[in-house]
Amino acid sequence: MTELISVAEADARIAAIVQLAPAIKCPLSKAAGRVLREDVLADRPLPPFDRVMMDGYAIRYKAIAECGGEFQICGQTFAGEATGKLGAASNAAMEIMTGAPLPLGADTIVPYEDTERNGDVLKLLASDEVELGEFIHRLGSDFAAKSKLVGAGSLLGPVEMGVAASCGYTEVLVSPRPRITVVGTGDELVAVDQTPLPHQIRASNATTLESALALAKYHVGDIDHWPDDAVHGRERLRVVLSRSDVVVIAGAVSKGQRDWIPTALDEVAECIFHGVYQRPGKPMGVWLTSDGRVIFALPGNPVSALVGLHRYVLPYLRQREGGAPKSVPHVSLGQAVSFAPPLTWFLSVRLESDRLAFPMPVNNSGDYARLCGTDGFIELSADCSEWTAGFEAPFYRWSS
Amino acid sequence: MTELISVAEADARIAAIVQLAPAIKCPLSKAAGRVLREDVLADRPLPPFDRVMMDGYAIRYKAIAECGGEFQICGQTFAGEATGKLGAASNAAMEIMTGAPLPLGADTIVPYEDTERNGDVLKLLASDEVELGEFIHRLGSDFAAKSKLVGAGSLLGPVEMGVAASCGYTEVLVSPRPRITVVGTGDELVAVDQTPLPHQIRASNATTLESALALAKYHVGDIDHWPDDAVHGRERLRVVLSRSDVVVIAGAVSKGQRDWIPTALDEVAECIFHGVYQRPGKPMGVWLTSDGRVIFALPGNPVSALVGLHRYVLPYLRQREGGAPKSVPHVSLGQAVSFAPPLTWFLSVRLESDRLAFPMPVNNSGDYARLCGTDGFIELSADCSEWTAGFEAPFYRWSS
Repeated sequence: MTELISVAEADARIAAIVQLAPAIKCPLSKAAGRVLREDVLADRPLPPFDRVMMDGYAIRYKAIAECGGEFQICGQTFAGEATGKLGAASNAAMEIMTGAPLPLGADTIVPYEDTERNGDVLKLLASDEVELGEFIHRLGSDFAAKSKLVGAGSLLGPVEMGVAASCGYTEVLVSPRPRITVVGTGDELVAVDQTPLPHQIRASNATTLESALALAKYHVGDIDHWPDDAVHGRERLRVVLSRSDVVVIAGAVSKGQRDWIPTALDEVAECIFHGVYQRPGKPMGVWLTSDGRVIFALPGNPVSALVGLHRYVLPYLRQREGGAPKSVPHVSLGQAVSFAPPLTWFLSVRLESDRLAFPMPVNNSGDYARLCGTDGFIELSADCSEWTAGFEAPFYRWSS
Repeated sequence: MTELISVAEADARIAAIVQLAPAIKCPLSKAAGRVLREDVLADRPLPPFDRVMMDGYAIRYKAIAECGGEFQICGQTFAGEATGKLGAASNAAMEIMTGAPLPLGADTIVPYEDTERNGDVLKLLASDEVELGEFIHRLGSDFAAKSKLVGAGSLLGPVEMGVAASCGYTEVLVSPRPRITVVGTGDELVAVDQTPLPHQIRASNATTLESALALAKYHVGDIDHWPDDAVHGRERLRVVLSRSDVVVIAGAVSKGQRDWIPTALDEVAECIFHGVYQRPGKPMGVWLTSDGRVIFALPGNPVSALVGLHRYVLPYLRQREGGAPKSVPHVSLGQAVSFAPPLTWFLSVRLESDRLAFPMPVNNSGDYARLCGTDGFIELSADCSEWTAGFEAPFYRWSS
């Protein structure tokens, strides 16, 4: 490990290596969840016509006085129909439905409940109270044509998708998804369909990391397993790097006698950092190749690997797509906790009422089973060692 | 509409028609985000062996007194190696790494920092302080073999996926995904790639609803558009029902002259309810066919449709898979609001600091543009009309 750095410094160094890939065109139907790289503009004023806001009748305001509040109904316009035209007679009225275009010649809407109808004769019940221009949602009053409705950098959620569709965007510019490879390491690993000997374990890190990425909508192109054999491992590293933008490795990153990964990474990439004042995950590191590929090397302890993915890899991937950083929700500690080491503590917790966090510390037993029943982890800063109940801490959820 | 019901009654009637589909087998690699329908059991004790918890030396405790705290180092065991054997001599010690199996014959671990080594001679620095059995994570002390690690009904997040992999589950029983069709209706709609006349709008509801479902990990098999033509529409309804488990329709559900959907649905399905004391979305309804297909008919107003999807359809889909209801987070009102009608009010809001909700009411303008910049909506109950700043309300996010 190089000199250990703080969590804040790790964040800063990762942010400094983010490279925004050139935007690509994407059919709108495939764009949900992607980061928009252009502004979505209104292609016409909104609303695009003088829109009626109540079911009722369209009239000429000044005719109220002229005809003593009595009108002749001369037609009907539904929503979705072309703009109608009020008869030339001053006392003409047209029945209209919410969402219909205001008939030409009309300037005021009187809702059903303020009228009385006999055949085609309409009588206003309170002529004095009718106001000029009432219940008309005017053309362009929400947005002028060419207004920016969704800005570049927005995440394309359902609202943004609907707006883009309504403005005629059949495709949009978005950030490309990185090609991601997840790698598990270790001679003690056997495949999931094998029966391990007592000292062996099944390879589960790759499954976990791949699932966490998939649930965050990132596709993992490849999953690889490397032995604790630096020669063979270096060959696999070359292959994986040649076809990945981002590589996430779990295991062999510390300074044990068999931890060959950092040395091998130093040969092909620049070390951005290796070692963070945190628990779990102290030996994690990040490397950057000269052609912009990024390698996250996480410890093989399953809890460390999963924490590292949520705390560093997912935020990096969001930044890499040009998206605004996701705001990290805060939760309240349900009981006091203390932690003496001068390390940032990522403490697994169970949430109650979605807000109150109860510590569920896991022992370092190398399996995930103790994490079942936890919802995620909170981050407790290195410059403190005692936290009272009610303390508000940033919370990272295992899956949303 | 039938007699209007409350939001709580709508929830209850929907819950009452949930039918759990028979579980299906799914390869573990495709199971992330699905609802588990079996218990995942430990296939062996956890940990599966007496596991060393510190880098250091394994010794016989009673030898400390016998040999004056001086030992002879006779080997080394790494994590992932088969269980070693301590030499027969009482003063034998074995160097061991964290995660390694405890050597046969040893019963106590002394960490590096409490020792001094000269060649193969090991000296304990504080013999008095060593305790029998220290730093050994005993076989089965976390979980016995056959323990339930993940219960049926759990959502398969990264932790659950990792646990299933480590227990050798190459496939798991999960709930099948429903076949979902989304339908937009209305003569005023034109396709996204068309240029609408002023009184027309592009069909965006289907895009929005499909995106919201996709981002919640539900695949929409088909998207359909129906005209305001009850005869042709009934034909399309038959086709869509024949190939869908769940149909979500937006539009033509009120009691306007062209709202043919409720009558057509009544002909082929039982009306569970039609009309809810809520705004927006009062005319929404739910129908159930005799063979268990469910139709959600939402108003065509885009905001009503999206609110209805999040408030009713997504929770229904989760229940239908046998998953626990998702807890609804609460947020605080950032300012006082009032709403006189005796209706539950779904109020669109913008969040600050992920907790403080500022109302962003949308006018009923029939497009999504005003929703841009909102994060979701809060639910304000019908039995109140004034809410003070700081009031805690359930919050539904447009996309997670």
